[in-house]
Amino acid sequence: MESFNIAILGCGTVGGGVARILLDMKEDLSARSSVNINLYKIVELCPKNASERFNLPMNLFCGNGKDLTKEEAKKFIFEIIKSDKIDLVVETIGGSDDFIFDIVVGICKSKKHLVTANKALLAEKGKDIFAAAEENDVNVGFEAAVCAAIPIIRTLKESFSGDSIVSISGIMNGTSNYILSKMQDENLDFKDALKLAQEGGYAEADPTLDINGYDAGHKLVILIKLAFGLDLTIDQLSVKGIENIDKEDIDFANEINSKIKLICYAKRIDSKIFATISPMMVKKNNFLSEVNGATNAVRIVNKYSGRHILLGKGAGSFETASSIVADIVFIARYSEKMQNSYWKSDFDFIDAKHFIFPYIITFETIDIPGITGLITTSVGQQNINIDTVSHNRHNKDKAVFSVATMPTTLKQINDAIMEIKNSKPEVLLSQPKIIPILY
Amino acid sequence: MESFNIAILGCGTVGGGVARILLDMKEDLSARSSVNINLYKIVELCPKNASERFNLPMNLFCGNGKDLTKEEAKKFIFEIIKSDKIDLVVETIGGSDDFIFDIVVGICKSKKHLVTANKALLAEKGKDIFAAAEENDVNVGFEAAVCAAIPIIRTLKESFSGDSIVSISGIMNGTSNYILSKMQDENLDFKDALKLAQEGGYAEADPTLDINGYDAGHKLVILIKLAFGLDLTIDQLSVKGIENIDKEDIDFANEINSKIKLICYAKRIDSKIFATISPMMVKKNNFLSEVNGATNAVRIVNKYSGRHILLGKGAGSFETASSIVADIVFIARYSEKMQNSYWKSDFDFIDAKHFIFPYIITFETIDIPGITGLITTSVGQQNINIDTVSHNRHNKDKAVFSVATMPTTLKQINDAIMEIKNSKPEVLLSQPKIIPILY
Repeated sequence: MESFNIAILGCGTVGGGVARILLDMKEDLSARSSVNINLYKIVELCPKNASERFNLPMNLFCGNGKDLTKEEAKKFIFEIIKSDKIDLVVETIGGSDDFIFDIVVGICKSKKHLVTANKALLAEKGKDIFAAAEENDVNVGFEAAVCAAIPIIRTLKESFSGDSIVSISGIMNGTSNYILSKMQDENLDFKDALKLAQEGGYAEADPTLDINGYDAGHKLVILIKLAFGLDLTIDQLSVKGIENIDKEDIDFANEINSKIKLICYAKRIDSKIFATISPMMVKKNNFLSEVNGATNAVRIVNKYSGRHILLGKGAGSFETASSIVADIVFIARYSEKMQNSYWKSDFDFIDAKHFIFPYIITFETIDIPGITGLITTSVGQQNINIDTVSHNRHNKDKAVFSVATMPTTLKQINDAIMEIKNSKPEVLLSQPKIIPILY
Repeated sequence: MESFNIAILGCGTVGGGVARILLDMKEDLSARSSVNINLYKIVELCPKNASERFNLPMNLFCGNGKDLTKEEAKKFIFEIIKSDKIDLVVETIGGSDDFIFDIVVGICKSKKHLVTANKALLAEKGKDIFAAAEENDVNVGFEAAVCAAIPIIRTLKESFSGDSIVSISGIMNGTSNYILSKMQDENLDFKDALKLAQEGGYAEADPTLDINGYDAGHKLVILIKLAFGLDLTIDQLSVKGIENIDKEDIDFANEINSKIKLICYAKRIDSKIFATISPMMVKKNNFLSEVNGATNAVRIVNKYSGRHILLGKGAGSFETASSIVADIVFIARYSEKMQNSYWKSDFDFIDAKHFIFPYIITFETIDIPGITGLITTSVGQQNINIDTVSHNRHNKDKAVFSVATMPTTLKQINDAIMEIKNSKPEVLLSQPKIIPILY
């Protein structure tokens, strides 16, 4: 059997898992790919830790197991890139700076396949990376970059190829879903739930990217590329995180038979694509409302085959590693027949402001008679159809109430708010909170 | 671009959907497969109906649109099998008799790829069909044979290739799930729920195979082959349907925070595979308990990547057809690199009797003091650990109560029941109902 030699760059939580699976399952993986899957070399700054944690033999590490300086590691990485013994390189270093970009492009240019879980890099610089791969006739595997263990990439590319994707919605960040679940189940406020997530290992010391929606946004950018053939950057998307969700929002969601979830959403309407990342009120008949804790889930609606849900672990060492290994097996078997330029399209991207959605608008106002009339009148004047108005949640000397709208645009809502501010500047005590409703 | 010519045998609900998608999406499908996907010919007894229903041009039909006798259809089928213009044949005739077996083997022997949704045929004669395909270096696509739109086949083969499958459990028959959901939600008994299913088009006039578990069993046989490399026939499996589930079972399930679902279950324990199809008490924290109506869902637990759930439409014209078209695209692109002999194994199959599971045993007894003691003592004597004993659901002059066991074997339970029957023949008014609990 022909050999298929693999190098791993970075042997931390994910890279170490990949190495372990490649050794444990060598025989099965070779049978499944019809080549001899062979872990050839690992570059890692601290081989001792990695070796102990994942029980890896020292001779696999460049430098024979001694700790490396960054310069030494760089030298080994470029040796691997140049080597004619290596068929595929796994990049599990992370980051999206020029250093890592040059490495992955270098891998492609030296005619080696690339497998990576680096969502930030692909979301920011994917276009150039895929172009380099295509020019050099190699493949890029990135199943692990979106929702770790959930095989959403291969499902979109190889299983939904007999269909046309209408929409994607999903819970793609485990940290924020864990926090929202804790707020819901244990009646905690945001800060306490975040603390709990950090103590339990569900959130990083610096949780910014998880909480502000950007981690989820990177994943959505990659899925939009695959599902709709559209090259976007995250700056083109409307991204809202969960920082401003409070107990009152959670309570009100319960009242209207919903749960608040951080949702990645993309939908095709004719030749236009709309996409957003935002906390949404997910109605209980939508499966995503039942997805709790650190679990991820993706809901896809197709033209012919209707609604699909994929649910699984969105993070973790071996969970992410197993998707990387599946990419290795797929590339080892099929690379000659794979294409990098997936589903091309002539779709246009449209701004979130112009997309039609039902919304919950929560107003915090002074507590005097006439307010409900004033606000609902202003909302109606913007041609927004009101579905329901919640009871007034009096809060000390404030009135808090929510308006559920029929499908409308953010632009209309913003115009209505502006109108209220202009006509009675004293009424609104804070900027109204606007949360889409997902049925 | 090279042409890839397709013939469809049988243009009913599914075959007609395939034809429609192939025409509608020709350009996209060709781009995705890098060959010119071309619907070449259709064999159908009543082309007029099919043409009207799916808006298909008459010249696609063998015989130019006139109704065919069975003999004429057979002649056209064998012309297609012999033709050197056809690359792939879609079999959507159905049935598992020699007639259809000879056709599919004939397709393989004449070096044409085969795509089929025929679960009964594959479950009963798959071994010979795959052998014929392997000998002749062609591929068999059967994504549509298991849970229609859910891409479980390709997920097992191509996405979980970096992992080792521990267990599969699923709701794989929409009809029985629809009936159970109706019994649950509308407090109907089995007969009324079945009638409703038939009226709503969710059950056939003869619903036997859906209700008795054999349709689901065929799917499980195919999944076991893929996941564990084991060739079984359905006769080797313990198959129980939902015919004997009554309102009381549904009520008791509710009481213990469960829902009754018809579950296909297969699990690997070391080198042994256990499998069964049975109604189970699915605990509410298991996602399968939330899958209602005609929806299908499969839950897979992997060694490295943990728990996965795939949910989607388990039946329907275009739902099934889209999976067939995905197989066509996959084969058109990758056939030269595909293997038919998937994951081989040396696993042994073990009988359901010897597998360890927690169970609910429901006893219908005479209503006198001392019964609970008698029964729980007999159960204990077989080394069965009792978890809980339900309150006594007095029913006219009978006592009905349930014992929830810790994990045990069916053999131990049957021995306990035998012991009760032997020592006090008058106590049990009917054969106790034994339902596994799925956590």
